[in-house]
Amino acid sequence: MGKTETLHTSAGKHVTLQQIFEAKRRVYQIVKPTPFIQSIQLSDQLGSPVYLKLENYHEIGAFKVRGAANKILQLSNEEKKRGVATFSTGNHGLAVAYVAKKMGISATVCISNRVPKAKVDAIRLAGARIEIVGEGQDDAEKYCYELEEKNGVTVIKPFDDPDIIAGQGTIGIEMAEEEPDIEVAVIPISGGGLFAGIATALKSYNPKMKMIGVSMERSPVMYESIRAGKPVILKEQPTLADSLLGGIGLNNAYTFEIAKNLVDDFVLVSEEEIAEAMGFMAAEHRMIVEGAAATGVAALLNRKIDLAGMKAGTIITGNNVDLSVISNVIQDYQRK
Amino acid sequence: MGKTETLHTSAGKHVTLQQIFEAKRRVYQIVKPTPFIQSIQLSDQLGSPVYLKLENYHEIGAFKVRGAANKILQLSNEEKKRGVATFSTGNHGLAVAYVAKKMGISATVCISNRVPKAKVDAIRLAGARIEIVGEGQDDAEKYCYELEEKNGVTVIKPFDDPDIIAGQGTIGIEMAEEEPDIEVAVIPISGGGLFAGIATALKSYNPKMKMIGVSMERSPVMYESIRAGKPVILKEQPTLADSLLGGIGLNNAYTFEIAKNLVDDFVLVSEEEIAEAMGFMAAEHRMIVEGAAATGVAALLNRKIDLAGMKAGTIITGNNVDLSVISNVIQDYQRK
Repeated sequence: MGKTETLHTSAGKHVTLQQIFEAKRRVYQIVKPTPFIQSIQLSDQLGSPVYLKLENYHEIGAFKVRGAANKILQLSNEEKKRGVATFSTGNHGLAVAYVAKKMGISATVCISNRVPKAKVDAIRLAGARIEIVGEGQDDAEKYCYELEEKNGVTVIKPFDDPDIIAGQGTIGIEMAEEEPDIEVAVIPISGGGLFAGIATALKSYNPKMKMIGVSMERSPVMYESIRAGKPVILKEQPTLADSLLGGIGLNNAYTFEIAKNLVDDFVLVSEEEIAEAMGFMAAEHRMIVEGAAATGVAALLNRKIDLAGMKAGTIITGNNVDLSVISNVIQDYQRK
Repeated sequence: MGKTETLHTSAGKHVTLQQIFEAKRRVYQIVKPTPFIQSIQLSDQLGSPVYLKLENYHEIGAFKVRGAANKILQLSNEEKKRGVATFSTGNHGLAVAYVAKKMGISATVCISNRVPKAKVDAIRLAGARIEIVGEGQDDAEKYCYELEEKNGVTVIKPFDDPDIIAGQGTIGIEMAEEEPDIEVAVIPISGGGLFAGIATALKSYNPKMKMIGVSMERSPVMYESIRAGKPVILKEQPTLADSLLGGIGLNNAYTFEIAKNLVDDFVLVSEEEIAEAMGFMAAEHRMIVEGAAATGVAALLNRKIDLAGMKAGTIITGNNVDLSVISNVIQDYQRK
């Protein structure tokens, strides 16, 4: 895994602390800083102070609003007039819809006809126009870029974009400002934008701070890519942490190099461990969180990270989970 | 019900806006302001903008931390050295334990041997010493005042104390600062401290703002007291909104008069309506909230308050609910 010394010196493109500070000034037009609270319960169980960065507390319930805000706020007036589009049906799609609505610009989310109605309704409620195209995500993505060509809308990519990374990096600045003596950061990794942004910010504050990436055992694409030394493609398996699914792109320009350089250790968690952590968050913190958001807590609860008394922080990334899923998770948790 | 013009002119004792502003300066040493977010879902359903004041977001999950902080921060150094005590096993007990721990002073919570282990554990985890005395709440209260006599601890009363009322009133200031054009406030009422504090603050900002009290149909003691023109005692019935149980005291000095004078309308909600609102908060906002905290949403969802396009705010007061209760509520909500 990466060494601290390689910070910002890799051949790959990177994002600077300055870009993250610029993002911070920008995104507070749309989003508010989130709390970074001590989990008395986790701290008590682990014998180390553990803090939770509550990104589930954003109005749309996910950190993605930061990256989307940083990207869309930089568009020219001409671009704003033409509107934005994206092809994500998850938290990024919601975030783009939400930010665009707040700014009074039009947003289109391109989706396939396989996307469940609940997701479509949520995106529509957030204020986006929906275009239903084709049978799968690839069709929707293709159509989105056709819209760009035809109508001049700006496509807001869900990952591997320096403005998105810098936007997510504002989380790291808030963590460092709130608890400057954090020694370990436990950060969920999917495409790596969240990890890259936060790790860039935190390693700038304190190069000795440990950056632990965490993914689910099922299809951990960044983990396998770092092991392979280059971006790989994995077959996606169903997982509670579905927000962490999705590839990193074989032409990945930013997140792979940044993650590879800044990660000190990488931990994988099982479906059972994710479910237990979701139950823990419901029981002890009365928060309904999605599987991806519980991966950091899962790693900590199962002592997969040796804290040895060090002060740790992890990110509760979002709360967009089906009620039926959380209902089952809570029932299972009670039976234990 | 009361008229706006009677603000601060009643024969009963009152709390001033100045006291609330002083409380505001004080309590931010311990607590943080909470978000006041628009519920897109409620606004969409009701055709009026509806905002939620998220008091469930305090580290101890309940607004009571404000009143407790305002009270305990005013103790003399000598009093702080001798410590504090209380006899509440609910959110007020937790709040006293939490504030005392933050300030490094000792707290004792007197409880009867009937209090369930889960509640005792929560108070202990929050940092208080537990004294188990007798068979019921009255024994615990009596013992608490004996401690005061013997050891010189200060008893922090759970209600009808001007410092507690002023502390809860800081919620009203935050609401007015965040959304100055709110026209209707929907406020859960039990002993009336929360209502008295918030209504005093908000009516000072805008005397035309409507103050709607909301209680559960089962044992709504302030509602019946206002109807009777004097404090009454009700037999307590089991309710999902158990945090709203408890009398207002026949010698009530503050909250009864303030509530009577400032309430524009009073609404009661059924157990079914409370359960539905708890399910709504879980499904739409991914928040686990206690029954009392859902009473405002219940009143709004069931159109018991005629908003007619007016901008409304309600208080999500806390999240201390048993996992088994919320689990059942969510299952029932899904079946609908």
